[in-house]
Amino acid sequence: MTPSMTAAVVPALLLLLLAAFSPELAAAASSSRRTTHQRYFPAGLASLHQQRAASSGGRYAAADNGTAKPFTAHYFPQELDHFTFTPNSSRVFSHKYLLNETFWRRKPTAGPLFVYTGNEGDIEWFTTNTGFMFDIAPQFGALLVFIEHRFYGESQPFGNDSSQSPDTLGYLTSTQALADFAVLITSLKQNLSAVDAPVVVFGGSYGGMLASWFRLKYPHVAMGALASSAPILQFDDISSWSGFDDTVTQDFKSESLNCYSVIKAVWDVLDDRGSNETGLLELSKTFRTCKTVHSADSLTNFLYTAFTYTAMTDYPTPANFLQNLPAYPVKEMCKIIDSFPAGADVVEKAFAAASLYYNYTGDQKCFQVEGGDDPHGLSGWGWQACTEMVMPMAVSNESMFPPFGFSYEERSKGCLANYGVRPRMHWITTEYGGHKIDKVLKRFGSNIIFSNGMRDPWSRGGVLKNISSSIIALVTEKGAHHLDFRSATKDDPDWVVEQRRQEIEIIHGWIDQYNKDIAQM
Amino acid sequence: MTPSMTAAVVPALLLLLLAAFSPELAAAASSSRRTTHQRYFPAGLASLHQQRAASSGGRYAAADNGTAKPFTAHYFPQELDHFTFTPNSSRVFSHKYLLNETFWRRKPTAGPLFVYTGNEGDIEWFTTNTGFMFDIAPQFGALLVFIEHRFYGESQPFGNDSSQSPDTLGYLTSTQALADFAVLITSLKQNLSAVDAPVVVFGGSYGGMLASWFRLKYPHVAMGALASSAPILQFDDISSWSGFDDTVTQDFKSESLNCYSVIKAVWDVLDDRGSNETGLLELSKTFRTCKTVHSADSLTNFLYTAFTYTAMTDYPTPANFLQNLPAYPVKEMCKIIDSFPAGADVVEKAFAAASLYYNYTGDQKCFQVEGGDDPHGLSGWGWQACTEMVMPMAVSNESMFPPFGFSYEERSKGCLANYGVRPRMHWITTEYGGHKIDKVLKRFGSNIIFSNGMRDPWSRGGVLKNISSSIIALVTEKGAHHLDFRSATKDDPDWVVEQRRQEIEIIHGWIDQYNKDIAQM
Repeated sequence: MTPSMTAAVVPALLLLLLAAFSPELAAAASSSRRTTHQRYFPAGLASLHQQRAASSGGRYAAADNGTAKPFTAHYFPQELDHFTFTPNSSRVFSHKYLLNETFWRRKPTAGPLFVYTGNEGDIEWFTTNTGFMFDIAPQFGALLVFIEHRFYGESQPFGNDSSQSPDTLGYLTSTQALADFAVLITSLKQNLSAVDAPVVVFGGSYGGMLASWFRLKYPHVAMGALASSAPILQFDDISSWSGFDDTVTQDFKSESLNCYSVIKAVWDVLDDRGSNETGLLELSKTFRTCKTVHSADSLTNFLYTAFTYTAMTDYPTPANFLQNLPAYPVKEMCKIIDSFPAGADVVEKAFAAASLYYNYTGDQKCFQVEGGDDPHGLSGWGWQACTEMVMPMAVSNESMFPPFGFSYEERSKGCLANYGVRPRMHWITTEYGGHKIDKVLKRFGSNIIFSNGMRDPWSRGGVLKNISSSIIALVTEKGAHHLDFRSATKDDPDWVVEQRRQEIEIIHGWIDQYNKDIAQM
Repeated sequence: MTPSMTAAVVPALLLLLLAAFSPELAAAASSSRRTTHQRYFPAGLASLHQQRAASSGGRYAAADNGTAKPFTAHYFPQELDHFTFTPNSSRVFSHKYLLNETFWRRKPTAGPLFVYTGNEGDIEWFTTNTGFMFDIAPQFGALLVFIEHRFYGESQPFGNDSSQSPDTLGYLTSTQALADFAVLITSLKQNLSAVDAPVVVFGGSYGGMLASWFRLKYPHVAMGALASSAPILQFDDISSWSGFDDTVTQDFKSESLNCYSVIKAVWDVLDDRGSNETGLLELSKTFRTCKTVHSADSLTNFLYTAFTYTAMTDYPTPANFLQNLPAYPVKEMCKIIDSFPAGADVVEKAFAAASLYYNYTGDQKCFQVEGGDDPHGLSGWGWQACTEMVMPMAVSNESMFPPFGFSYEERSKGCLANYGVRPRMHWITTEYGGHKIDKVLKRFGSNIIFSNGMRDPWSRGGVLKNISSSIIALVTEKGAHHLDFRSATKDDPDWVVEQRRQEIEIIHGWIDQYNKDIAQM
């Protein structure tokens, strides 16, 4: 399925830490193959981006809010299975990582390695959207390393066959990914003659989960972790199953009660109109779909995606992470809804609001709401949600979305049907913990920052309180999904400037202490 | 290969954390199949022991220095591969564990679970030799749990085919074993309605390595670990490669310089005499072998095993761990050597000393020095030494043993030839750390006791200094291999009584703190 260049990207993005809602949807999207996509790269970079497969080690540039940052691509021979010695286990694949050595201080003591633990997409995308690491590298004299997650981007253990079946996808697990990071970092430090250099891992969202778990599981490899918007507690019954949707709802409600009411009202109308062919044809026109839709469900998804992702990326400045959006996009969406005459059609209102998300730049002629594209190769998340990443989520009656429940049984059935695999429902908490995390980590572990913004619906599954003197929660009331990881801009509000300042100060403290400890050898 | 009941058990025991020396030997022994063996169970218990396969959940008894301790056997449906979701991964095997509920306090707050993390043999053997846990259970109101290590004892994931090839043996790794423990303990606590009960893990030797790693990797499952004689630093170049043999040598030298000199002299004489058929026939007579030996190497191994294992089990009281031995057996061996007239044959002297190890009870009519038996099913260690457990060990010129070096290349070649597998030489330190452990754990982790006795050759690969206020080293000058884990006896010297007292006091402190933390919920 090749995306039309003028069609907006819709369902695949639902996969971004959201497949938890609907493995069926995830599975459908996973059948759409990875495509080369250029929308997320500014002019000039897109063509470089396309060269990557051909020119290993070539020099690219990451951009976050327009500022280009250089990096080079490298490939590490990584073993397929770190935890068995079956004949298959020693198969080697090319594991991609990006380096920026511009700021690295080698003397008198080696500066730190700042390592991004890649998540569910190609590594360039996360690199591009983690300008914070580039911003702070000079003052730390840090080497920047961005490691791709296996089965994403170019790091495909079985090449084009990597997503074929459980025989291949079976090796896509978080534990293997963490071991990949450990092996790669250890080897890289040896090759750089910098075995004593401190390593701090950074990650956002699922990457933040990985960063915090990495610090806990591999303290001998990373001496600290900054985990931004990492919902490590969105498992089992640790956090409220409706926390995510409650937060999205709250975000919109806080802007305007009318906005909330309109969105809450639209779903039944959609269902009603979509119940016959004539209605679907009408709706397709209203939504300016590229092709007539087969079911109102796809329009529901279209809207749902727009509202939830806009809540996630409700940044205080213009940004282009998931889509190009203005500052405070939730407020802008509600302004659009509120600007309609009272008696206007709710579907018209909702579509106009959603268009802010899909078409802020105004260049979309039609919207491709069924099928869809996967510009950053996120489809693997569908598999992960069907194996380890069982994050129960439900929508309550007070939500602005249609209520629905979560059922372990349904998840299991769906995963078996779509992937031929059964989820291990409670594996994540067995492997990484989460229950009573404040008690468990009160006297265990150190040097982790959990940063969250409370406008981010994922924040409800995060660590929001300090656990110990060095396992710290930095929470902003108005922040969104890993906002702190974005490049600083002149328009940043004080509270995010302060959050980043604290992060820098804490990391400086870790590194000073580390260097003192090492010097006492 | 069925053992003769009157033939002494020899080479298989070399596998007990010693295959590191000789994967070739390990491989040879691994071809000898697991057999039902009764020597390590007192009269009456042996027949019960044999029933185990037939009567799941039946009641058995462990004995350490003659005191019977009851336990029941249970089987848990364990998944084969915790770290992939390939079709094979969900295969389920019967994972054995033993329970003793006699001392468990259920109210007002549940008493702790004391869990032994099983090592490279059948779990009854370790249970029998860990009387310490039975001794202290009453004062803690503890539930005792002894979990078998996968691929040992009855916990064979592929039944009788488990050791056939890398296709099956490939799943025998320490990381899978730790995950087995986590899954089993988590499930057990749920079934017992005791999710808040504290868990302390105990382990000796490789089991101690597992216990300390388990606390580090699964702090949410175990709140403390007592790791006895755990050589977690016998990897890479962290500890001296000749530490083991230097200590054995020192043990003997400290008893008598003559004893040391005799043993040092015997190897060349053996080689010399064993260079022709007549010599081998003569030597076979001297050593009272059941069959004429084919090479002097087997006699070298016979002696080497006797001296090293006697050093490991140089306990201050009579004990029957590896073999029935008197108190301070190294001293006794040297007394035997020193009692010979000065001009007597060194081979006669060495054999007489070794006989203390193999035939203290005097019931052996001949010694089976080639082939041999594997009473506790230790053969899997050969595989482990050829995959993860690459513990470089060498013998220096000052040793009483023939000097030899360690070569990664040789190890690799031997493993490929014998098992069709290549070791991952530095995987253990990548996965678990070890380098600069004092720096890494100074500000990370808590609640681990590393206990060691300096007479134990394995102590040189252990943690011998406190790392932090709650990662503690308890070292006795005169202790041997996990002596503290044996049942208390009336003849115990003060220093081991004191070591155990400190362990109990520290564990009490952990549990008190844990209960206070939990109460603050």
